[in-house]
Amino acid sequence: MALAELITERIRRVTGLPRVALHEPSFKGNEWVYVKECLDTGWVSSVGSYVDRFERDLAEVTGAAHAVVVSNGTSGLQVALQLACVRAGDEVIIPALSFVATANAVVHCGATPHFADSEYASLGLGVPALADHLASIVETRSGVSVNRHTGQRIGAIVPMHTFGHPVDMPALMDLAQRHGIAVVEDAAESLGSLIDGRHTGTHGLCAMLSFNGNKIVTTGGGGAIITNDVTLAKRAKHLTTTAKQPHPWAFFHDEVGYNFRLPNLNAALGCAQLEQLAGFVAAKRELALRYADALQDVAGVKLFTERAGTRANYWLQTLILDADVADQRDAILASTNAAGQMTRPVWELLSTLPMYAACPGMDTPIARDLARRIVNLPSSPQLVKAAA
Amino acid sequence: MALAELITERIRRVTGLPRVALHEPSFKGNEWVYVKECLDTGWVSSVGSYVDRFERDLAEVTGAAHAVVVSNGTSGLQVALQLACVRAGDEVIIPALSFVATANAVVHCGATPHFADSEYASLGLGVPALADHLASIVETRSGVSVNRHTGQRIGAIVPMHTFGHPVDMPALMDLAQRHGIAVVEDAAESLGSLIDGRHTGTHGLCAMLSFNGNKIVTTGGGGAIITNDVTLAKRAKHLTTTAKQPHPWAFFHDEVGYNFRLPNLNAALGCAQLEQLAGFVAAKRELALRYADALQDVAGVKLFTERAGTRANYWLQTLILDADVADQRDAILASTNAAGQMTRPVWELLSTLPMYAACPGMDTPIARDLARRIVNLPSSPQLVKAAA
Repeated sequence: MALAELITERIRRVTGLPRVALHEPSFKGNEWVYVKECLDTGWVSSVGSYVDRFERDLAEVTGAAHAVVVSNGTSGLQVALQLACVRAGDEVIIPALSFVATANAVVHCGATPHFADSEYASLGLGVPALADHLASIVETRSGVSVNRHTGQRIGAIVPMHTFGHPVDMPALMDLAQRHGIAVVEDAAESLGSLIDGRHTGTHGLCAMLSFNGNKIVTTGGGGAIITNDVTLAKRAKHLTTTAKQPHPWAFFHDEVGYNFRLPNLNAALGCAQLEQLAGFVAAKRELALRYADALQDVAGVKLFTERAGTRANYWLQTLILDADVADQRDAILASTNAAGQMTRPVWELLSTLPMYAACPGMDTPIARDLARRIVNLPSSPQLVKAAA
Repeated sequence: MALAELITERIRRVTGLPRVALHEPSFKGNEWVYVKECLDTGWVSSVGSYVDRFERDLAEVTGAAHAVVVSNGTSGLQVALQLACVRAGDEVIIPALSFVATANAVVHCGATPHFADSEYASLGLGVPALADHLASIVETRSGVSVNRHTGQRIGAIVPMHTFGHPVDMPALMDLAQRHGIAVVEDAAESLGSLIDGRHTGTHGLCAMLSFNGNKIVTTGGGGAIITNDVTLAKRAKHLTTTAKQPHPWAFFHDEVGYNFRLPNLNAALGCAQLEQLAGFVAAKRELALRYADALQDVAGVKLFTERAGTRANYWLQTLILDADVADQRDAILASTNAAGQMTRPVWELLSTLPMYAACPGMDTPIARDLARRIVNLPSSPQLVKAAA
């Protein structure tokens, strides 16, 4: 049997379904109860008890001191970068291998993406190679780290925890601190993922979470900023709610703000989903074991598994093709999708998209290699019946 | 009885309630049926049948050829301005008397607000005074209308239909066309408001609607762009959905886009609300009659009523104080709110907020005068029992 057909058959064996999506939400908890309460009470909009509760629950689940919910992950990252004092004209270091939102949020701040390579161990930013790159390009001018080639300040480093697999944050924080550069985590995919027991998103200055429809926990569309710094949290709330000063009736806004509020209706969904996070993570971890087992004897492919010292949420199950079968990736995508088992490749490298092709950055040989060799598999938690 | 107490007593007579909010949504239609369907099918996020249906329904209700739903009105106006080719460094003419979102959306495009005065007849942009102002400041350079004092291009004019009362759009379109300036309507407050039978938002190149929790129709938070131009509508959808090219699995984005999608869950709420729009408008128009009647013999105040040739949705009921009792506005606000009848003043003039104080603009004597004399009254449609 050809590799593509063999993989298709093994995926179907795990999913047990004739047609299966890449990722579907599961609403078997209190979703109905909480959403209906919003409608019954009329509290559907940006002020309401579920907004407050979702923020408290997110802080508790992640261990961050504060959470501020927003309309989506892109908006959350844009504001998180502003909290880190990223300004127009800065460069922000982001992985070339990420969803386009990571780069768009940088541009929405008026800054420029500066692309970095990935590593094989985490699929995210490779810290040793980034250290070498920074050593070669960063120059300190008046105490500020500047890219000597462009003259622009390096405003922040944004690690992204790919498919829920954590970047080596302790090493990255060391590197960033040596250069005096802020770290803002793109934790859109890693709710429930830990590094030595500490939640992703709590190592840097602040982080963004996403609750888009395909995420491990969904609010329809939504996101959050988490941080341990109370001043940043207050500023995040102010900036995302039109920068209005509190008053029972008067409208006084003291800076250019955003309307990035998450409606209470969506926060209600989030509260119900978050109650089930532990079960979703357990199901996804079990699903990873099943895929790994089913593909164990298939030569040329391997299920990607977590680094030592980390606990991944396995948000999207990830097949890594050996370099010598990478040319069969499109055949695998075609065969699996034709058979109703939805799979997808990883994103086009951001540095190859037309609007980002001229941006600065380091060479990205590992990201280029991974981009040819990754196939994401059906990952819904409910594929593991017992857990969801 | 002092004026403040007299007004408080008359408002309570109309509302008939000991405590009443400024505006509360009414969910007595198919809200729960549609929202529950989203939860039952798992389609809560940015792709789903209610998103498509809400766009079709909005086009039908407004008579616009196309509607594209977005995450909120601010985001909608930002993108609408980009559709009109507003660019960084342009000036955009907006009323000084508007909610802060009108100005923020301009700044989010990298442009600068240029403030214009209001008129007493509509509470919105006064066209004759704006015509005089443009005649004095606009210079045509290489076919482009430029502010001769700043050297910046006038990128667009944004009329805002205050509390649902339409600006004189035929006159404004004439003026804008004479200067070759695009018109983008801020119709956040005027869903259901007509000018000679034609819906607000359909006169200019495109328009933004808002479905925030306090609007006549709510999605929790949400908005839409409406236009008669199919090319603009397609571009609006592309820009607001991360500029991703359609493909069953690949991720190719061809420009810097936004994540301004409205979740299907919120669109479902919108569909149910829109079915009741005619009833909400009728209730608000009846409520205006009741307030006008109750306040008829109160010297010094008058309920604001629609201009001839327009049909207002009376989104927020508006009391206008005579100039000689304007100094009692704060007493009226204090008395009504203390008595559980929630009222509020109009917004601070945008041109007086710290971040906009240095922006260009015309003198705004009428806006300044109105800002002292407006008090909005409780306006929920359900205050008229029969209609909602």
